[in-house]
Amino acid sequence: MKIALLGHGNVGRGVSGIIDSGNTGFTKQLEITKILVRDASEATDERMVFNIDEALDDDIEVVVECLGGIEFPFSCISKALNMKKHVVTSNKKVMATYYDQLIALADKNDVNIIFEASVGGGIPVMSNIRHTKRVDEISAFSGIFNGTTNFILDKMYKEQKPFREVLTQAQKLGYAESDPGDDIDGHDVKYKCCLTGNMVWDTSLSLTDITVFGIRTVNQKDIDFGKRHQSTLKLIGRGSKNDRQVQIFVIPEFINDNDTLAHVGSNLNCIVFTSTNLGIASYIGQGAGTFPTAHAVVQDLVSLLNGEDLKISTDEKFAINNKEYISRFYVRTENLVYFEDYIYKKIDPDTIITEPMDLYKLKELIEKTADKNLFVAGVSL
Amino acid sequence: MKIALLGHGNVGRGVSGIIDSGNTGFTKQLEITKILVRDASEATDERMVFNIDEALDDDIEVVVECLGGIEFPFSCISKALNMKKHVVTSNKKVMATYYDQLIALADKNDVNIIFEASVGGGIPVMSNIRHTKRVDEISAFSGIFNGTTNFILDKMYKEQKPFREVLTQAQKLGYAESDPGDDIDGHDVKYKCCLTGNMVWDTSLSLTDITVFGIRTVNQKDIDFGKRHQSTLKLIGRGSKNDRQVQIFVIPEFINDNDTLAHVGSNLNCIVFTSTNLGIASYIGQGAGTFPTAHAVVQDLVSLLNGEDLKISTDEKFAINNKEYISRFYVRTENLVYFEDYIYKKIDPDTIITEPMDLYKLKELIEKTADKNLFVAGVSL
Repeated sequence: MKIALLGHGNVGRGVSGIIDSGNTGFTKQLEITKILVRDASEATDERMVFNIDEALDDDIEVVVECLGGIEFPFSCISKALNMKKHVVTSNKKVMATYYDQLIALADKNDVNIIFEASVGGGIPVMSNIRHTKRVDEISAFSGIFNGTTNFILDKMYKEQKPFREVLTQAQKLGYAESDPGDDIDGHDVKYKCCLTGNMVWDTSLSLTDITVFGIRTVNQKDIDFGKRHQSTLKLIGRGSKNDRQVQIFVIPEFINDNDTLAHVGSNLNCIVFTSTNLGIASYIGQGAGTFPTAHAVVQDLVSLLNGEDLKISTDEKFAINNKEYISRFYVRTENLVYFEDYIYKKIDPDTIITEPMDLYKLKELIEKTADKNLFVAGVSL
Repeated sequence: MKIALLGHGNVGRGVSGIIDSGNTGFTKQLEITKILVRDASEATDERMVFNIDEALDDDIEVVVECLGGIEFPFSCISKALNMKKHVVTSNKKVMATYYDQLIALADKNDVNIIFEASVGGGIPVMSNIRHTKRVDEISAFSGIFNGTTNFILDKMYKEQKPFREVLTQAQKLGYAESDPGDDIDGHDVKYKCCLTGNMVWDTSLSLTDITVFGIRTVNQKDIDFGKRHQSTLKLIGRGSKNDRQVQIFVIPEFINDNDTLAHVGSNLNCIVFTSTNLGIASYIGQGAGTFPTAHAVVQDLVSLLNGEDLKISTDEKFAINNKEYISRFYVRTENLVYFEDYIYKKIDPDTIITEPMDLYKLKELIEKTADKNLFVAGVSL
């Protein structure tokens, strides 16, 4: 099966590494014949080309997109689909942003677009969703979807190091981008939860309706509060379905230490599904990194090679409504006055546990404080 | 696809429950037309028959074996394969005992025999092995393969209850058999590790060469030793491959609390694979129970329905050799004299940590003590 690889960064290099070495019966049947790189300065291989039209020649059956960014990958993927080539992408941002358009375009051209590597890195999230749904209905998912923030929170917990220091360390180790906003503000998890929800419930959810809180403002006091209450702070993405409504949100949560999730450390991801007969099933693995992510990309290629049914449905229509999720929240802000009527427990002059409320009410109160250093987390006290 | 179901106990009832209700596009295409039960006293349904020949009529394409035991299931499965019917079984004991014969018989008759439910209950162990191997080589596996003993050790750890009391509770909850020997002596894990190793390395391993230590003699003192050393006692199965040798053994181990495995509680299973590109990936879920196990059986049926390539190879030949696994061990016995030359550390008059040794040396010394109450566990101090 002839493949054009777009991008030769961390993931792209892993993909060509696995395919070029051809260590299994399946990977031997894959062949990368074109590699799109920016310009001649990046060319290390005679397969390398510098514009997308050169990459998409007639022999190519599948295009693998590992470019990063949104608009350029979107135009490359659209072009490939219109030329009736299957597309495999590791790009969560472009998939979550243009889900409807890309799935419709693939359908129209009678080809597949698949994106195993875009969620949970090496963890086979998408193939396990497809697998589980053969027999069960999945009612909910949750978990740690971002390795960078898990690394940061784990180091802050175990080594009492300040946020900024650990973030810098994560950047040096290549876990965090030079602009870490998508990670620490929760948007990376938002993209991944959107794609997970879409696959689980055969729908196309509105990215902007997902409620998101990040960990940009977390400090040692917050971590220590968890410790005192036998809990570990984790950035959690959650999705669930009740009848015609879907809840999806991203929020730091104090996870009770009796829960395995509290003990998923380092830069690991852990994705948990709840389904009819299987009950609760969790998958822990490398959520990022060159070879785990490349493994997931190559799995998609093998699925295409095997002619599996990879058609994606967006037939079900669901609005996101997070109003039914009611919880107490840990809130730390210098401006607690707006929370005055909602205090369940005072922790110290800056910190309270709220009475139970929904996420929209919480967001409204947080906005009133206008406190850029405010930190909020779900808590089950 | 017409199915004969052999056995209508815990698992069998779950299988007919899922298939009869036909909640997904795939399960709707499955139909149970015969159910083998012992005699008329068990008949609750007009599909029920009382001898195997009645169950195997011409229309039947697949036979699902959920009988329990060894010799009768073996004869039923053999008969079904010889009549060119695919076989799905949840029976680890019959599969591990007659692996070579059953795989060869399926091959000869050009049908499949598959057994997802026999290892890890609802956890898709076998399908994830097949999936991972498409791209990676799996070098090792480990984990908690038995829910009953995990339940017992977890209760002893969290509630300080004595072994016998927790075992009785596990029996009442239906986790443990009335004869719990296979669970607490480690043989259940041995069968599962044998099947896992066979699938991972395309081989047929000798069940009797797997070294096994159980938890029959564990007491609170042992659990507390772990607590004092930030470790949790778990019954672990391990397999790994180096060149032409395979190591497989079952042993209680003190797992460091930094390891997620230490926090897999209750009756859950956790299976961990190490492979080339994916690195370490873990799956946590219900290792037993009617519906999780039945889910796994029905997954096998859907795989047959989809015409997946389910052929099992035993072409690779490996001897099990556990000599290269060297560890320190926690040993508690009233007869420590035989360990005199191998003491790394004395814990109390009955308990030591040994110098590093291999499992065969350990077994030899244990046999010399002739102490039926001896308890041994791997330790990484």
